[in-house]
Order: sequence, then structure tokens, then C-alpha cells
Amino acid sequence: MDYMEKEMLKAQTLIEALPFIQKFNGKKIVVKYGGSAMLDDNLKYSVLKDVALLKLIGLKPIIVHGGGKEISKWVRMSGKEPEFVNGLRVTDKDTMEIAEMVLFKVNQNLVGMMGKLGIKAVGLSGKDAEMIRVEKKLAGGKDIGYVGQIKEVNTDLLESLIEDDFVPVISPIGLGENNEGYNINADDTACAVARAVGAEKLVFLTDIEGVFVDPMDKRTLIPEMDLEMAHEFVDKGVVGGGMLPKLNNCIEAIENGVARVHILDGRVEHCLLLEFFTEKGIGTAILKEPIFGKDDIYERIYK
Amino acid sequence: MDYMEKEMLKAQTLIEALPFIQKFNGKKIVVKYGGSAMLDDNLKYSVLKDVALLKLIGLKPIIVHGGGKEISKWVRMSGKEPEFVNGLRVTDKDTMEIAEMVLFKVNQNLVGMMGKLGIKAVGLSGKDAEMIRVEKKLAGGKDIGYVGQIKEVNTDLLESLIEDDFVPVISPIGLGENNEGYNINADDTACAVARAVGAEKLVFLTDIEGVFVDPMDKRTLIPEMDLEMAHEFVDKGVVGGGMLPKLNNCIEAIENGVARVHILDGRVEHCLLLEFFTEKGIGTAILKEPIFGKDDIYERIYK
Amino acid sequence: MDYMEKEMLKAQTLIEALPFIQKFNGKKIVVKYGGSAMLDDNLKYSVLKDVALLKLIGLKPIIVHGGGKEISKWVRMSGKEPEFVNGLRVTDKDTMEIAEMVLFKVNQNLVGMMGKLGIKAVGLSGKDAEMIRVEKKLAGGKDIGYVGQIKEVNTDLLESLIEDDFVPVISPIGLGENNEGYNINADDTACAVARAVGAEKLVFLTDIEGVFVDPMDKRTLIPEMDLEMAHEFVDKGVVGGGMLPKLNNCIEAIENGVARVHILDGRVEHCLLLEFFTEKGIGTAILKEPIFGKDDIYERIYK
Amino acid sequence: MDYMEKEMLKAQTLIEALPFIQKFNGKKIVVKYGGSAMLDDNLKYSVLKDVALLKLIGLKPIIVHGGGKEISKWVRMSGKEPEFVNGLRVTDKDTMEIAEMVLFKVNQNLVGMMGKLGIKAVGLSGKDAEMIRVEKKLAGGKDIGYVGQIKEVNTDLLESLIEDDFVPVISPIGLGENNEGYNINADDTACAVARAVGAEKLVFLTDIEGVFVDPMDKRTLIPEMDLEMAHEFVDKGVVGGGMLPKLNNCIEAIENGVARVHILDGRVEHCLLLEFFTEKGIGTAILKEPIFGKDDIYERIYK
Amino acid sequence: MDYMEKEMLKAQTLIEALPFIQKFNGKKIVVKYGGSAMLDDNLKYSVLKDVALLKLIGLKPIIVHGGGKEISKWVRMSGKEPEFVNGLRVTDKDTMEIAEMVLFKVNQNLVGMMGKLGIKAVGLSGKDAEMIRVEKKLAGGKDIGYVGQIKEVNTDLLESLIEDDFVPVISPIGLGENNEGYNINADDTACAVARAVGAEKLVFLTDIEGVFVDPMDKRTLIPEMDLEMAHEFVDKGVVGGGMLPKLNNCIEAIENGVARVHILDGRVEHCLLLEFFTEKGIGTAILKEPIFGKDDIYERIYK
Amino acid sequence: MDYMEKEMLKAQTLIEALPFIQKFNGKKIVVKYGGSAMLDDNLKYSVLKDVALLKLIGLKPIIVHGGGKEISKWVRMSGKEPEFVNGLRVTDKDTMEIAEMVLFKVNQNLVGMMGKLGIKAVGLSGKDAEMIRVEKKLAGGKDIGYVGQIKEVNTDLLESLIEDDFVPVISPIGLGENNEGYNINADDTACAVARAVGAEKLVFLTDIEGVFVDPMDKRTLIPEMDLEMAHEFVDKGVVGGGMLPKLNNCIEAIENGVARVHILDGRVEHCLLLEFFTEKGIGTAILKEPIFGKDDIYERIYK
Repeated sequence: MDYMEKEMLKAQTLIEALPFIQKFNGKKIVVKYGGSAMLDDNLKYSVLKDVALLKLIGLKPIIVHGGGKEISKWVRMSGKEPEFVNGLRVTDKDTMEIAEMVLFKVNQNLVGMMGKLGIKAVGLSGKDAEMIRVEKKLAGGKDIGYVGQIKEVNTDLLESLIEDDFVPVISPIGLGENNEGYNINADDTACAVARAVGAEKLVFLTDIEGVFVDPMDKRTLIPEMDLEMAHEFVDKGVVGGGMLPKLNNCIEAIENGVARVHILDGRVEHCLLLEFFTEKGIGTAILKEPIFGKDDIYERIYK
Repeated sequence: MDYMEKEMLKAQTLIEALPFIQKFNGKKIVVKYGGSAMLDDNLKYSVLKDVALLKLIGLKPIIVHGGGKEISKWVRMSGKEPEFVNGLRVTDKDTMEIAEMVLFKVNQNLVGMMGKLGIKAVGLSGKDAEMIRVEKKLAGGKDIGYVGQIKEVNTDLLESLIEDDFVPVISPIGLGENNEGYNINADDTACAVARAVGAEKLVFLTDIEGVFVDPMDKRTLIPEMDLEMAHEFVDKGVVGGGMLPKLNNCIEAIENGVARVHILDGRVEHCLLLEFFTEKGIGTAILKEPIFGKDDIYERIYK
Repeated sequence: MDYMEKEMLKAQTLIEALPFIQKFNGKKIVVKYGGSAMLDDNLKYSVLKDVALLKLIGLKPIIVHGGGKEISKWVRMSGKEPEFVNGLRVTDKDTMEIAEMVLFKVNQNLVGMMGKLGIKAVGLSGKDAEMIRVEKKLAGGKDIGYVGQIKEVNTDLLESLIEDDFVPVISPIGLGENNEGYNINADDTACAVARAVGAEKLVFLTDIEGVFVDPMDKRTLIPEMDLEMAHEFVDKGVVGGGMLPKLNNCIEAIENGVARVHILDGRVEHCLLLEFFTEKGIGTAILKEPIFGKDDIYERIYK
Repeated sequence: MDYMEKEMLKAQTLIEALPFIQKFNGKKIVVKYGGSAMLDDNLKYSVLKDVALLKLIGLKPIIVHGGGKEISKWVRMSGKEPEFVNGLRVTDKDTMEIAEMVLFKVNQNLVGMMGKLGIKAVGLSGKDAEMIRVEKKLAGGKDIGYVGQIKEVNTDLLESLIEDDFVPVISPIGLGENNEGYNINADDTACAVARAVGAEKLVFLTDIEGVFVDPMDKRTLIPEMDLEMAHEFVDKGVVGGGMLPKLNNCIEAIENGVARVHILDGRVEHCLLLEFFTEKGIGTAILKEPIFGKDDIYERIYK
Repeated sequence: MDYMEKEMLKAQTLIEALPFIQKFNGKKIVVKYGGSAMLDDNLKYSVLKDVALLKLIGLKPIIVHGGGKEISKWVRMSGKEPEFVNGLRVTDKDTMEIAEMVLFKVNQNLVGMMGKLGIKAVGLSGKDAEMIRVEKKLAGGKDIGYVGQIKEVNTDLLESLIEDDFVPVISPIGLGENNEGYNINADDTACAVARAVGAEKLVFLTDIEGVFVDPMDKRTLIPEMDLEMAHEFVDKGVVGGGMLPKLNNCIEAIENGVARVHILDGRVEHCLLLEFFTEKGIGTAILKEPIFGKDDIYERIYK
Repeated sequence: MDYMEKEMLKAQTLIEALPFIQKFNGKKIVVKYGGSAMLDDNLKYSVLKDVALLKLIGLKPIIVHGGGKEISKWVRMSGKEPEFVNGLRVTDKDTMEIAEMVLFKVNQNLVGMMGKLGIKAVGLSGKDAEMIRVEKKLAGGKDIGYVGQIKEVNTDLLESLIEDDFVPVISPIGLGENNEGYNINADDTACAVARAVGAEKLVFLTDIEGVFVDPMDKRTLIPEMDLEMAHEFVDKGVVGGGMLPKLNNCIEAIENGVARVHILDGRVEHCLLLEFFTEKGIGTAILKEPIFGKDDIYERIYK
């Protein structure tokens, strides 16, 4: 391929993106960003470049990030052993203090990188402008400290920032009754924010390629499901393991007005663009509208 | 290249477009559209797709079109032989009537195609809202009828439409002292509109690959020039023929505040995208800022 | 009458206009402009002056024009004989091309005259910003080409222009499924636009003084009717001939939210002002509100 | 003249008003309203109708009224004899109290009549929102009480009301250093307000037909003068008597940015419309722009 | 207490005001101002200072004033004896003229004092912009002249002024069918304005400390009541005399959307601040929300 | 003092605040908050209550906080000994990471407390929206790591938040050339922000009562100085020690458009209110306008 052919191919690619750009123009998109994708600097940069592009071509992205692994590292550094009950981090006052600081470090790192890409990002926690109100969450009836369940998301600050062309980057910290900080699940946060702002799309960047019937067998990837299928997969135990709470989150988001939720492999370079700008997309999509001709999906799953 | 590799390449292309998208975000761009590019339906569609993409990713395009060849055809159909003095069409009342009608046909065809691409285009002539005021232009001191020289462009209507997200498509018709229609040169119109709205870029889609020292020798294409060079090329007769008035137009545009003017080959598919989104661009650029290291350009020209 | 008396009479006239000016302040008015009134330059200028005055004293006029006779003339010039089925013009691709061009000529002529009167008019067709969507209309079940039935009027462009103080002048051209141009009836267009923008008043300028029971007997002019009367006149065949479709259009407009529709003789100088600013008005009015004391109207008709 | 002819004449009158309506569209106009015109109910109603019309066709009128005669009447009723020094009313605290009340009565009467005409008028004094600041004015070096000289007009309240489509009606009461009320000259008030809001035109409705060289000889009416002439008439004593301060006021208004000042006979019915909507106007105009061909004016005066 | 202690106490007071400031931020408050509080210059200044403070810390006050005693004084001065039927002033044309003038004097005095306090007040009557429409009120079936019953309050002017940060000061004058002035009860006016603008609070400044069961026994002051209690007190005749119409006014205001109505003793210095910024408040409050634990109130009353 | 007397005294205090509230209405105020005042929870709450009050009564506060002592504590916890050169913290990558996290903890604590007080605060660092750009600062020519000198403050985000009624709380972190975080001096930050937003007042809450000639002798407190005095005190060495850089900061702020800078003792409860709402104020003020009658200040100093 000579120079001109290559350039022509590029132009062709841009033109193919046209209908996708039109479809999402002016829409709010929540990207839950976490897992391995956040630990590798190249991957991180690739993800943020994708977000920057989405912003520039007219979408309104909001980033929600996690930070579980980093928190554990710093808790250990402080001399404690991280403790979990039912998958929830036991969070005493010191741990919460460490969690807030570590999340801020992660947050500001993302904000700084977005700045480098020419995007005005603003780091937020749920404490800012009392954005995310929580109540204490018990783990199997047991009080495990500053672990919160989201009660309400006040979108005033988000709307104000988005309106003025900033990209909010949100740390999963909530505000308790006495305005003390609470540790909240980043997936839950992304889901609650997406519902509150009326996002068109919610994307989970994960460490897995999508939802599988048999995670060991790549051929059993479920490319898309509607609410009916999603409920069925949950009820029949088709989907299980760590994917279960995430899938429940997806279902909840769809049932609360988000049109489409995607589970992508954040380790794939430019996974966001691949999802937004290709016909088939990647990963698993959970969609509000019923999917026609889903027999082949079922066939593959139940064979 | 398997499917995934291909998709990844596409994502890469979009990401490479990032800095160019940022650079032109919110900027007004005037595209003079004429010549062969307008006679071939595929080419026309390719050009308009490019304009649609530019609009969607945040630029504010304005299209100015010509129609010389079509006008001559219809004049002939009406039983007259088109007549020119110094390259200017002798335009009596009947010819002007035909010209207006033909230009409208061309205009509405572009507007309709833009609509198909999901872009709200609005066809305009210089008569609409008294946008383009002209005075009679003489050809070598001789009155050749309704041929106008632009005196003033009132941008109220353009600003109003652009503000509300429409794409203006302008026919080169001006308004005389008694509000009768005047035939005006489409290149002049594009140039005057670009200056009046403060366009960032003015692009001429032509039937030639750019400005050449020796049009017979493709290797003498001048990729870019600054005002100094452009004046020199005009004064020394380096550039001549049909390119001379166009180059003078470019110079005038630059001298009146347009930052960059480009002469592209409208027959190349996606020529606009190639110009906007590749490092080297195509065709010839005339730039406001001085160009450093222009020795090699001179060397090639004066060898 | 000496100078001062004359001037005083003028002042008196302006003062008498006061309640009418108040009544229509800020209201949208659609004027369907066609027939002979459009062929005589003096009459044309008189009508446009009226529109200009309405605009200046606070109304928001929209002009819809026709052009049937001119189109036939140009079709003939192109060597074809105009052909009609059930009163609808058989419109092949060439005819449509001619129709569009002729309508544009008419349109721009009106726009230019408005400009002379100091009013910023903007010529539009239904193609602009995909304003008027049509589907093919059959003539007695027969496909007669590019003849359209209006499906939908998108008012975005009209609202945008009116808001910014421009006067839209609309050619009756619609947009088919593949964005090709369609010939539409100008009366239908005026009616559809009036409904879509929520016009207060729709005025048809015609070649007849109003609706008559017996067009041969001027004394049988029906000065006003409400919906009930209008339906009755249609059903009982009181009104017939060329007036029938127009009356049906009026009924449809009233039934779709337009408060008053008027049929005026466009050949009467300043017919618009006579209608807007005199107590009795001229021509025939079809009104939303029931008319009290309509016995004398009936009496005249059924005598 | 039969009915139709009469109506046609009316339409013609409206059309003739077109250029005048265009000329004053959106302009602020200050009308000083006083003298006999205010004592006759019919004349008052005629003047206010004119103002209402000006408002409705797009001008932004402000009314300033006087009330001298009424104040004297009420002062007498309270048992005092009105006293003047150099034409200025000696104004003790009681007199000021009466003046304020009487002016309010006059003011509210105008406001009420405007209401009847469908115009939202708002009565104001210079005290409202601290609109007119004054300092004490001495009469030949003598303190004659609450008589003020205007120092400053704060236009915030006027702009706010005009913007929201109300018509301010202003009583000539100013605010002293300790926020006590001061009697101010109504002509001065009109002049100061016209300058402060940047009025296009200031009109004095008086009891005289205009400025005369010899008030006894109606033929010596000066139809218009420019600044040069006005200064000359003052300096050479051509104009004298009660007209002198008014003419000085006019000169001052012109020198401070008002484009045209008119002195009209408020006793002529519809004098405002006659002035605004006839070519020759009535009364005397003092104009910013120099008047060409003023020889005949001079000739008449100096004959 | 040394200087620093005193200052600290002041700071403490400001801080205690915090929750009250928050509670009323941006809320509209109508203050009916009349009685003795208006006759003493010191008291007047104290009340207006309070209003100024409320304005500055973010409330939107509207003042309605009375003037009954002053009117009677001036009527007597004019040689008539004030006459009342059922507590309503018999108001012939002359009396109405005097009433308007006296009320204006009162109004402008308040406006001037507000100006001194740095607050932009604007004096209004119900005639301004046709704000308050009335119909004739009969006294026991008898026509007693220009005495009006409020039919409608048009809030356009009030909203416009409040929006632009002015404080309206309203005289109780209404507009009859023919736009003549009508005398209206100031309490009724305050009540109607409060309902029309959706005031949060309506305060009556009176000459009594509040509502008493036995006005002779200060211990029977009723500190607060809800609608149920208020109706009961009226029905059972617990409250009577001059307080009855006022209490009925309060009930009507509450039933029409005003959240809280207060009856305060205007003779107490800074009574408004005491009411707004102390926990217990002063005077009697009538509240929309039911009051819990009102047994002790009942106990005191029915003991 | 009985209950009523006490309440009356409170009302009196609010009224005395009136002129101060007027003076600062709508003005931007930057509060540098640091030192001991930040370590004591009661003091912290007292300061924030003051800020909340200022916000509610119409000022637009911005808080800039420090955190030096906390950072050192955490650095030590991580096993390092804090190191300083010329008073600047040697800041390697790890230290910077700790600094950012600790500052965020401090920041979010303030944000949370503001929330409790009903104020919508938003925590920011200079990285957010690329607000604060820095370049590396050398310590005596020596590179001591991530220590920055402010080059530019972009106020877009601050203006956007203030406009929408949020209170920005800023951590002193700047953005280097490669968008990495830099440690910046909190006093410098407050000063740069005050200048950039055009603050009316800049307040430093410190651990000292003000600027003293002899810090050991409380009687030598300088209550206020103008630029001339401030320069003199710096040049003559009257002021020295830790106060010198702060005073230089004050001078720079004044020279760049801030009208008044105050140095207050943050340990005094409600120090902000004492400064804003008492005639004499507390601490030391540096003022733009020259101070008249400053002889007694000089006398005290040079005695």
C-alpha cells in the first residue's frame, strides 16, 4: 500500500464513523474505568485517548474510576492487612482515610492525563457539592464500617460542569448522614450516575472479554442480550461468578432508563472506539430494546 | 489482516485524527465547490460526506458552489450561444434568469444530498436577506450586463443559521442597487464570504492537483506558500494561466484575515478529509504564517 | 380638503388601525400568494408592501407562493406540452427540474422585492433543512411522477428564521423518501405550514373576490362562515368548482388549529391591509369560533 | 367617495407610513407632555393614542409630564399664594408635599388612560430607584427651597421597564442629597432623560405651533434648524420670551447625543402622528445634522 | 464586656442567623406596613432598615402600605368630614383624588427612605401596568363610591422589577372597569399580592402585639395557630373585633398558597428581624402546616 | 438582660452589618486557610461557618487551603524524613504522591464540613481543568524536585462553578509542563487565584495576630498600611521573619488589582466575621487606597 492508498483508507475509516458519530451526538456516556486497564500506562493512555475523541466529536463522557487494588496496597503499607466480608472491604476510619487519598491519587492522575490530551477534566468525589448520598451497607447483617450504599445522586454539579464542556472524573466516595466519607462500589457508582444523568450508554471496562456461558470457552461469548435474556441468564444460573453482580448492575441500569450497557475488555487497545465505531462492536451489550432473531445466540448457549 | 486487526487499524485512524479535530473545533470553514467534482455523482457524494463529517465533529462548514458549465448548457438550450468577454459571461436579462434557475437547481441538489446524509443544509443566494451586495463589473470598460463585483457581505443570516446548526449552501448570485440579481464569480463569492464570517480556512475544490510551476510536470507542485512566496510567484510570473485569479483570490483572503487557504483536487475522493486529517495534506496551501525552511520549495521551483 | 385636513385624516387612519395592530401583535400569519396577483408587477409590489407593513408592526408573516402558469410556460419552451391528470401536473424528471428552477425564479424575485422594501426575506424550498416531507400522490390510482402529498412539516428552520426576524418565502417543493424533489400544491403547502407553525391566520390570495353561492352573482358572496356552515356548503354542493379544494383546505386548516382562514381577491390593491385593518374585511373568512346571527347569511344564500 | 374607496385610502395611508415605521423601529422616543394639551380630556386621549400607536409599531416611548398649573391651583386651595422668583416656584416643604401629590395625580391619570388603550404604562418619579439626582437650584443666588437642578439620571429602572415592554411615565420630581423630593422643571427632565437613555428623538408638546421669529406672524414659523442656526437665533436674539429656555434645552439635548428635537403644538389633534408620519412634519425641528439649502429659511426670517 | 467580647457576641449573632438566612434565601416576602409604625419617623426607619437587610441577604421583599389616617386628615383639610359605612370609607370622586395623592406621598416617602438605605425601591399603585383590577364593593348593599374589591392581580410588573433587583412599594389603589382609581383595603391588597406572587411569608405590621383571646390580658397571646385552629377561633368567636377581618385575611392567604402569615407589633423596633431571626419569633403566626403539641395553646385559651 | 433585650441586641447587630453586607455584595473573596486554625476541629468549624455566612449574604468566597504539617507527618509515616532547602520542601516523586493525597484528604474534609453547613463546596486541585500551570522552582539554584512556581491561572472552571453558586475549595497543587503534579506554596496560590479572578479581598488566616513591628510587643501591631507603607516596611526591614514573604505576597496582590488584603489570626473564633463586619476590623490590612492620617501609625512604629 503506497502513501496515498493508506491515506485514502484513513479517510474511508472516518467516513464509516459518520453514522455512529451522528447516533451519539450530544449524548451522555458513562465509562466505568477500572481493573488492569488502569494499571498499565499505555492502556490507560489508550483508553483516555478514546474518551478524548468521544468528547471532541460531540459526546458528553463522564468517567467513574475504581481503585481497589491500589487501596489494598496502601493499607498494607500502613501496616494493616486488608479485610473483606462478602466481598466488601472492612473499612475503619483509618482505612477510609487511606482509601480517599489513594482514590484521589488515581483520580488526579486521570485528570492530568486528560489535560495532556487537551481535554478539561475535573476530578470529583461524591462529597463535592454533596453529589452522592449513601447509607451504611451491612455485610451479612454485620457493620463493617464506612461502606456505603448509594441513596441519591444530586446531578447539579455534573450538569453544570458538562454544560460548560468539562469532563467529570468521579471517585467512588459517598457522603454519609454526618457528611463523613464512605467507600462505595465503583460499578454501583457508575450505574447510579448513569441513571441519574440519563446516560445513553454505560460502559464497563473490565478484565474479561465479555459475558460468557463458559468463561473457559471463548466461543460462548454472548454478544448481546435484551432484558428478557439477561434476566433468564441470571435466573437459570447461566451467568455466574464475578460477572453476576456486574450483570445485575447492567440490568438495573437498563431498567432505570439507560438505553444500552456494555461490558468490554479494557485490556484491548482502543476498546471504546471499537465498541462505538464498528458495526459488530466488541464485548457484551445489554440493550433496552428487544433483539430480533436471537435464536442463534440461544442456540450457541444451550447447545 | 484479520477482522480484529482491521478494526484496530480503524480505531488507530480515528485516534490520529484527534489533534486535527481539536485544531478545527468550532471553526468556520468555507468550501468552494465546483468543476468536475460537481458533475460526477459519486464524487459529489464523496465531497458532501466529507463536509457532513466535518460538521459532525464540530466544524461549521459553509458551501459555496459554482455552476458555469450547466449555465452555458441551458443558455444554449434556450437558443443562444454563451458569450464571454475577458472570461466574464455576457449576461443579459434572459441569461441572468437562466443562470439563477440553473444555480438553484445545482444548489437544491446539494441541499437534498446533504439531507440524505443527515445534515440540515439550507440553500441560499446572495439575494436572501440581502446577503451579498454587488456593483456592476465592467469587462475591459464594457458593460456586459448583469455581472457583479461584490461590495459587501451581510453575515446576519449566515450567523443565524450556523448558530442554529444549519449548513448554508450559497449560490453565487448578488444583489444590485435595485435588488435585481447579478451573476458573480463563485471563487470571489467564497473568498468574500470567508472573509466576512472570519473563516479559519477556505478550500477551493478544483480540477487540478494544486499550484504548479510547470503544470505539465507534476513534480513542480508547490505544497505550501506564505504570503511572501505567493506574491513573488504572482509577480515573477511563476504562476500563470487560469490559476492566477484563483491565487490572487487566495492572497486576498489571507490578507483579509483568513488563516489558511487550500487549493485541492476535487476529483480525488475524500480530498477534504485528506487535507484536514493528514499531516502532509494534499494540494497547495497558502498560509498566513511564514513558513520556515522553505528553501527546498524554492530549490525545486527555480532549479 | 387642504393639506392639513388630509394629513389629519391620515393620522386618524393610523389610530383606527390601533386595535387591529394590538390583536395580531407577535402572531404568525401565513400568506398564500399566487394567481394573477403574481403576474402584475404593480400588484405584486402592492401585496409585498402590505406584508412588509404587517412585519414592521409586529406580525410574523410567512409567504408561500405558487407558480403554476410560469412552469407550464417553461415546460412548453423546453418543447413539451404540459399534461394534467385530475388537475395534477404529470411531472417527469425533466418537468420537475424545470418546475424547481421556475419556482426558484419566482421565489427570488419576491425575496429581492422584499429586500427593496427593507425586509430581510429568505427564500426556501421544502428541501431546505428537510422542511417538507412528502409521499408520492397518485392521480386516480395512476403514478404521474414527482407529485407529492405532504406528510410532515419540520418547523425548526422556520422558527429559527422567524425568531431572528427574517421573513420566510417558501416554494412548494417537497422532499421524497430519497430526498428527490416533489411538486406539491401551493395551497396545500400554505395550509400545512400554517398548521405546523400554529399560525393565527392563513390568507389565500386568489383571482376571485371570495366564496360565492353563485359566482355569476356578486351579491351572493359569503362574507364569513364557521366550520358548521363550511361543512354544510361543501356537503350540499353550495360551493363547487375550483373553490371546492380551496374550501376543503380552509376547513382542514381550521380543524387543525388555525383560528381564521381568509380567501381574498389578490387583484385588489392592498387587499391584505383591507382585510387586516378594516372592521368588515373583504373576501370570505372561515372562522374557528361559531358566528352568531348568521341567519342573514343563510337567508341570502338560500333565497 | 364610496366605502371601498375610503378603505383603499386608508390602506394607502398605512403604506405611506412604512418608511417612517422602519426609520424609528426600536428607537427610544421621549415625549414631554404638558400645557393645555394636558387639561383637555379629548386632547389628552388623542395624544396618548398616538403614543400607544408609536409603542405598538415598535418604538419605545417614554413620557415626561408637567403639572405646573395644577400645582398652583392646589397650593391656592391649601390657603397659600403661589410665589415665583425668576420663573422658579418658591417651594417650601408644604408646597413640595402638594407638588408631589398633584404630580402623582396627573401621572396616574395618564397611566390609567394608557391602560385603557391596552398599553402597560408605569408611573415613576425621580425618587423611584433613585432615578434622578438633583442639587439645590438657587434663583438669582437666593435659596427658594426644594427646587432642584438635575445632576444625574440613573437609567437602570428605565432600561429594565422598557426592556420588558412597559411605557414609563415620569413625574418631574428629583432626589436631593438626603433623599428628600425636589421640584424640577419638566422640560429639563425630559431633556436629561432623553440624553441619558440615548433617545433618537425628543418631542416637546407645547401651547404654541413652533418657534417663530415673530410669534404674531404665523408665516415666520421656522420649520427646522440645525445647531448652527439654533445658536445663531439664540445669540442674535431672534428667538426670545418663553421659547428661549426651551430652545436652549433643545440645543443642549442635541449637543448631548439626541439626534432630533421637535417642538409641536400639543393642541393639534394627533400632533405626534403628524410629526412622525408625514414628510414635512409640523412644528419646529432642531436637528443634529446640518440642513442643506437653508437659504430660504434665512430669507424668510431676515426679510 | 470589653470591646473584643462585644464584637465576638456580634459575630455569634450573625452566625446564629445562618439557618434563618438559608431558609428564606430567594423567597418572596410581602410586608403590609401601616398603623402607628408609619407615623413615627424612628419606627419607620427601623422597619425599613429591617426590610433593607432582608433584601441584602437574599430575600425578595414587597412592601404594601396603608394610609388611612393621613387620608382622613387631608379630607378634613379639604373641608369634608370623612364618612364610613361598615368600616368602609365613603369615597366620592374628590375623596378618591385626595386618597390617591396622599397615598402617593406616603409611598414616595418610603421609596426615598429606602433609597437612603441603598435599596432601589420603586413606588407603584395598582394602576401601574394595570396591576390590580377591582370591582365596586358595596357596603351593606349600598354604593359608597370608589371602593373596590380586588378581582385580579397581574404580576408581570412585579416579577419584572423583582427580577431586576428592585423592591416594589405598593399603594392600595385598584383599577376599575373604566380604568378609574379605586380605594382598596391595604390588608386585602397585601394578601392578594402575596397569593399572586406566591410569597413564602406575609407579615402584617399592626398596632397590637398579636392575636389575643382576651386583648386585655397579655398572657392570652396566641403564639401560633394552624388553619384548623384559626377557623375554630373565628367560628367560636374566640377572636373578634378589629382582629377578625385581619385573621380572615390570614386564613385566606394560607388557603391560597402562602406558607406562613404573621401578625406583628410594628411599634416594636426591628420587629421584622425579631420575627425572622429568632427561634421563637414574636407576635402571632398562622401556619400552613399543622402544629404538633398544641395542647398547651388550647389550655391557655380555654382555661 | 432579659430575653427581649437580648433579642433586640441581636437585631441591632444584624442592622449594624447592613453597610458591610452592601459593600461586599457580589464580590469575590479569596480566603487562604491554613496553620493551627486548620488543626482544631472547633476552630475549623467556626471558620467555615463564617465562610458559609459570607456566601449566603451574597459574597462569592473561594477557599485555598494548605497542609504543610500534615504532609510532613505522612512523609515521616512512609519512613522518610521531610527535608527543606530555603524553606521549600524537597519533593521527590514519592513525596509528591503523598503530598497530593494528604492535600486531598484535607480538601475533602473541608468540602464535607461545608456540605454540613448547607453550602455546595467543590474540591479542586490546580490539575483540574488545567487550572494552575507551574514551572519548576529552584531552591538557591538547586533542583529540589516537584516544587512549582505559578505561571498562569486559568479561571474558566472557577468562573463556571462560582456562576452556578458552588464554593471552590482549592488544594495548592500545580500542573507542570508534562501535566505532572507540582507542590506549590498555598499563600502564593491564594494570591495568584485572587489576582486571576479579580477578587475584592484576599484574607490570610494565620497563626499570628497581624503584622508587628516587634512581634514580642503586642502594642506594635500595624492595623493597616497602604502600598507605600508596606514597601517602606519591607525595605527598611521593619517587618521581617516569616512575615516577610507573606507581606510581599500581599504587596504583589495589591499591585495586581486586589483592593484589600488582610492578615488575620485564624485562631480567633469568627475572625472572618470580625474582620468583615466591624468598623475597626482585626489583624493587619494592606490597602490599595492611600490611608490618610497615618501619622499615628508611624509614630507608634518609629517611637
